[in-house]
Amino acid sequence: MSKSLIEKKLSSTAIYEGRIVNLRLDDVKLPDNNEAKREIVEHAGGVSVIPYLTASKEVIMVRQFRNPIDEVLLELPAGLLEMNEDPQNGARRELEEETGYKTGDLKRIGSFYTSPGFCDEEIHLYLAQDLTKHVQKTDGDEFIEIVKMPLSDIKQKLYTPEISDAKTVIGLQYLLKYLEQNNIK
Amino acid sequence: MSKSLIEKKLSSTAIYEGRIVNLRLDDVKLPDNNEAKREIVEHAGGVSVIPYLTASKEVIMVRQFRNPIDEVLLELPAGLLEMNEDPQNGARRELEEETGYKTGDLKRIGSFYTSPGFCDEEIHLYLAQDLTKHVQKTDGDEFIEIVKMPLSDIKQKLYTPEISDAKTVIGLQYLLKYLEQNNIK
Repeated sequence: MSKSLIEKKLSSTAIYEGRIVNLRLDDVKLPDNNEAKREIVEHAGGVSVIPYLTASKEVIMVRQFRNPIDEVLLELPAGLLEMNEDPQNGARRELEEETGYKTGDLKRIGSFYTSPGFCDEEIHLYLAQDLTKHVQKTDGDEFIEIVKMPLSDIKQKLYTPEISDAKTVIGLQYLLKYLEQNNIK
Repeated sequence: MSKSLIEKKLSSTAIYEGRIVNLRLDDVKLPDNNEAKREIVEHAGGVSVIPYLTASKEVIMVRQFRNPIDEVLLELPAGLLEMNEDPQNGARRELEEETGYKTGDLKRIGSFYTSPGFCDEEIHLYLAQDLTKHVQKTDGDEFIEIVKMPLSDIKQKLYTPEISDAKTVIGLQYLLKYLEQNNIK
């Protein structure tokens, strides 16, 4: 790490400890020795899956009400990691719970932080092919509609408000590039 | 909106009101009439810019310590919107403050939510070309290193831990596609 950029934590105060997030307030020493306060949201991290049906050229997506923005969004299947869960197992579990599909071909794409300026949430992204239909089994407080979206629609809707969830944008951008590079049209 | 997915807010309790985030706890009625609690982080939203130097085929990025994850990340220039600020003006302002560059060609790409399951943060993304160097003027508590990254490096580092900030992944995926489609090699 560049030493000239690093902040040193002086103290930390827990503001809230919840089910999905914790909030803490840190006092830090800046590289110029001044002090500042940092509001930090702690999050367990999650997984997201691009389920691609090769034969029909469709992505299995989920439509879900998102309370913070008061909108129904179209997203890739995703969910929180359980305690000590391996991300690959979490991806298989969430794919099956949310869509009812199991995969025989799961490929890790990469991981990213959703908003590292204030939050430590990291999402691990996977591409799932060789999909077979089983039974959807969402959590009690999850209400989800499954949408099979053709590639042609995805190309049109990317960068429009219809697809506006960050992990979903990243996953679909990746898929389009992947299919092109592998000459899957 | 699909009525069968929508949650109805019953009550809302403010937990914390801060400089960057607020935290509130909502009681909601689910589509099946059961009740649930939702932890919601409120955030003012931000802008991010892909500053592309056409002649040298480089993207101007910033290296910055991110307290929540205790790492120095390589990101696209970005920042919070000021009160009532037009996102396009915010993009120009943040580009100049963080990198010292002004743009004569700013193009809106789209907007996305960083983590809509618990947070309302929305980021507006722009592509900036026709760049001219002026003076960097960061905020007092911002310590930023400017990195000009060649396209060839970006192609290699995308989907590796070196580029792991969501808005940056989205912006660079967009740029590579845009250059390819416009036959800019």
